[in-house]
Amino acid sequence: MALPLWVRSAAPILDWGAAYSREMLSDDLLAALIVTIMLIPQSLAYALLAGLPPEVGLYASILPLVAYAVFGTSRALAVGPVAVVSLMTASAVSKVAAAGSGDYLTAAVLLAFVSGLMLVGMGILRLGLLANFLSHSVISGFITASGLLIAASQLKHILGIKAEGETLLQLGGDLWRHMPQANPITLAIGLGATAFLFWSRRWLKPLLLARGWVKSRAEAATRAAPVCAVLGTTLLTWGLGLVDMGVKIVGTIPQGLPPLTLPSFDPALWRQLAGSALLISVVGFVESVSVAQTLAAKRRQRIIPDQELIGLGAANIAAALTGGYPVTGGFARSVVNFDAGAVTPAAGVFTAAGILVAALLLTPLLYFLPQATLAATIIVAVLSLVDLNTLKRTWTYSKADFAAMAATIALTLGLGVEIGIVSGVLVSIGLHLWRTSRPHWAIVGLIPGTAHFRNIDRHDVITSETVLTVRVDESLYFANARFLEELVSALAAERPMLKHVILMCPAINHIDASALESLEAINRNLKDGGIMLHLSEVKGPVMDRLKRGHFLDEMTGRVFLSQFEAYQALA
Amino acid sequence: MALPLWVRSAAPILDWGAAYSREMLSDDLLAALIVTIMLIPQSLAYALLAGLPPEVGLYASILPLVAYAVFGTSRALAVGPVAVVSLMTASAVSKVAAAGSGDYLTAAVLLAFVSGLMLVGMGILRLGLLANFLSHSVISGFITASGLLIAASQLKHILGIKAEGETLLQLGGDLWRHMPQANPITLAIGLGATAFLFWSRRWLKPLLLARGWVKSRAEAATRAAPVCAVLGTTLLTWGLGLVDMGVKIVGTIPQGLPPLTLPSFDPALWRQLAGSALLISVVGFVESVSVAQTLAAKRRQRIIPDQELIGLGAANIAAALTGGYPVTGGFARSVVNFDAGAVTPAAGVFTAAGILVAALLLTPLLYFLPQATLAATIIVAVLSLVDLNTLKRTWTYSKADFAAMAATIALTLGLGVEIGIVSGVLVSIGLHLWRTSRPHWAIVGLIPGTAHFRNIDRHDVITSETVLTVRVDESLYFANARFLEELVSALAAERPMLKHVILMCPAINHIDASALESLEAINRNLKDGGIMLHLSEVKGPVMDRLKRGHFLDEMTGRVFLSQFEAYQALA
Repeated sequence: MALPLWVRSAAPILDWGAAYSREMLSDDLLAALIVTIMLIPQSLAYALLAGLPPEVGLYASILPLVAYAVFGTSRALAVGPVAVVSLMTASAVSKVAAAGSGDYLTAAVLLAFVSGLMLVGMGILRLGLLANFLSHSVISGFITASGLLIAASQLKHILGIKAEGETLLQLGGDLWRHMPQANPITLAIGLGATAFLFWSRRWLKPLLLARGWVKSRAEAATRAAPVCAVLGTTLLTWGLGLVDMGVKIVGTIPQGLPPLTLPSFDPALWRQLAGSALLISVVGFVESVSVAQTLAAKRRQRIIPDQELIGLGAANIAAALTGGYPVTGGFARSVVNFDAGAVTPAAGVFTAAGILVAALLLTPLLYFLPQATLAATIIVAVLSLVDLNTLKRTWTYSKADFAAMAATIALTLGLGVEIGIVSGVLVSIGLHLWRTSRPHWAIVGLIPGTAHFRNIDRHDVITSETVLTVRVDESLYFANARFLEELVSALAAERPMLKHVILMCPAINHIDASALESLEAINRNLKDGGIMLHLSEVKGPVMDRLKRGHFLDEMTGRVFLSQFEAYQALA
Repeated sequence: MALPLWVRSAAPILDWGAAYSREMLSDDLLAALIVTIMLIPQSLAYALLAGLPPEVGLYASILPLVAYAVFGTSRALAVGPVAVVSLMTASAVSKVAAAGSGDYLTAAVLLAFVSGLMLVGMGILRLGLLANFLSHSVISGFITASGLLIAASQLKHILGIKAEGETLLQLGGDLWRHMPQANPITLAIGLGATAFLFWSRRWLKPLLLARGWVKSRAEAATRAAPVCAVLGTTLLTWGLGLVDMGVKIVGTIPQGLPPLTLPSFDPALWRQLAGSALLISVVGFVESVSVAQTLAAKRRQRIIPDQELIGLGAANIAAALTGGYPVTGGFARSVVNFDAGAVTPAAGVFTAAGILVAALLLTPLLYFLPQATLAATIIVAVLSLVDLNTLKRTWTYSKADFAAMAATIALTLGLGVEIGIVSGVLVSIGLHLWRTSRPHWAIVGLIPGTAHFRNIDRHDVITSETVLTVRVDESLYFANARFLEELVSALAAERPMLKHVILMCPAINHIDASALESLEAINRNLKDGGIMLHLSEVKGPVMDRLKRGHFLDEMTGRVFLSQFEAYQALA
């Protein structure tokens, strides 16, 4: 029974599901097992980062994975709670509800729901390209700054004190004020776990390989390090009765199925959360798509970005219906999933089953898990997001892009995640417009003995007192239209003998209506001064469009196919 | 005594003033006389449009003209109150003060002061290019919509009723409600004046020429028509005692020198007016510069836009210090000034002297001037701003530009001037980014027997199963970076035999850091799939920049000077 194409492309599971084989099953099951082990501590930790009870992290790692498996197009993306989106959730929700309150959870659930609806809506309207407005520089700066903010926000758990704040300054100040209350035992656990995790990340695999382990087992052991930290510190806390000495633990995590939750329909709350939901949607989508694309390319597969919006939207709606909070595709766990051999999104379904088992059976074992251990897990994970190298590379390549990146980092650290990312987008758009508003241009002349025209400042070329040829290396549009008017009028005013101006257009990909008006004004102004305007080397699509207006009729001069032809005719 | 260049360029009067001759004096005096006659009714009318007492219009036409003459660079620009800026002033000031109150005048004066400071600041920082963000389409739509709004706002004076509103709907509704109170005598004067002005604008000159008048006298008579309307209706109202029959008149205009005013230093008021002042500055500057540029070109002179900012800024500061309100260069009166033979900004000084004489001596004569006559003057003047022809031409040329223009018109009429212009700017920027985010691209192949490569969809060309050449006709930057990634990965996924991808770059004027990251990702992804990435026909400046990064080292393939060379090497 062949399903219609639109049904199959709306739910990609129907495509790969029909061809599912026993071999795929065993590959996917193995990958799912490894991801599950990785995801249990992560989902608890990220829920705490978002200011939510730990079980919410587990709930966000069950049904959303199934929903993504049905609607998503990536074969390897592992969906669930991630660090940056958890931080953004905390920032958004803490503006509308007090931490720890029922309203806080309600708002987090609604945030997932609104974000899910937006993603699905963007997918249906094929607005995936909206994500383009987040430039690489901005997203990279944002993630670096978020990593630093997240790490700073976790220091309180390592120190066993309280500290709040949305900016680095607030967090630092609060940490400093509460420093005297730091708990030495908590600090020992936190630093120990952090050190162990950093060590295992860097040195465990080489060590095991040196001891003759096979590569796959050494890698699996390395990935199990966070679980070891969790087990070790939990046993220690339980065995030595550290709770009485002030070590804060995760405590009771309700055992059972995720609850069915209906998102709030309070219109005021929807309005308050809409902006944050949009930012979370776009940031989550961009992160997720870039991981998915990288992994797909490795197997010569492809993902469909607009369908990815629907997949991620479905995952968020599923999170909202089962007591979860905003999710997206995680970088580290998707790579693990891919490396472990996941071949279809079914691996996600099996991971969901694994987390479900954990939620049903394992939560009592996590009672004595110190919060400091979870904080250590987060710190080690997010510090790998901090990428100062890109900052340096961008500085070398382009000062404008560096400015956008630096502004995003500074504003995210200094004013919070939402202001940071919005400002970054505005700065990068502004800088782009600014750059194209002052395009590169050159007066060109003929290289003797050839038909080539080059910049008179760089080459020894033939020019004429009566003919001026200007080449503009940018599409003409409103931001540089007046620049061109001023340029031509200034050049003409300096040249009393001038009879012809040739605008050489091989680099002009587009002329918008404003630029057309400017060309008309240039033509009129030159005409008033007794100078003719000509064009040369106009591209096909630009010429097609010019023919639709009156400009070519009004233009005093001609359109030449080649600059050489123009020069021969006029000079 | 030669002054240093920076002094001369900071106050252009030092340049042209040094060479001032008796002949120039007589030319400038004649032009000033004609402009003065035109400006007296206009300045009263525009002050009423701004919701201010009529004398404020006169005050704004004295010292500001002198200030512009000292600092401005245009030889023909006539500065003073203009229609669109008066409407914007009314819109801005009515938000912070009640019409007719002392606070209203205070706010209008401060608006001129803040706007003047902003213009001078932009001039010193050489930010004249900021005006580029107002595209021709947006400014043309905005001026058309403003013309309609202004005309609608004057109907109340023609009808002799009250009506308020910032949008066409509010104005229309209010007019309709008060229609029963319309005063028939006022209506007769208003309609009569309007008809006379329209008639004289269109038919008076041909009629006089046909009667054998010389052209210059016929033109002067045509320009004097508004003065005739003023005199005629004033005499009529006085002679027939029409005030007793409900005709509203201008009334007492204080006789004397403009007052010296110190702008308010209330920080709250500054904050409230800052946004409006910026909009007024930019709109006024754009209008003024385009007139000045057109007129300068006719005599092969040039203006310096950044110095124009300082000239207009000085004019506004002068307005604020002498009881005036925001001013800028007016289109109609500058053309009159130019045609009447003004050769230096001294004509502006003489015009100022003329208006000063009017303020000192003539105001009692204007006591019986009906407000309906001033409204008729405005209506006839602004309806020439309404330009639906451009709307049609833009539709033919570009649907995107038409959308920006139509949105500006609809939002200005529907939601007011400030929202209208800001939305127009945002829409035009958004559409530009949207267009460049989905650039034109083509797979190209070799035209047999040549070294030319063309679109495979349009030409009969040779291609290879192992080599794919893609030409992108747009600079690569963040908004289209991911588009390129997706494009290449989709094209590669469809071609199992593929070994080489060549990106043909003759139309790429710039590659920003985000696009560079995308090229790196494309290179990595293709490499993972066993495909090499090459570039061909990279422009010099783009290549210079690429050499600063690591991309060329990491790239699996080569950079070819010509596409033909690339094809020969790889196919």
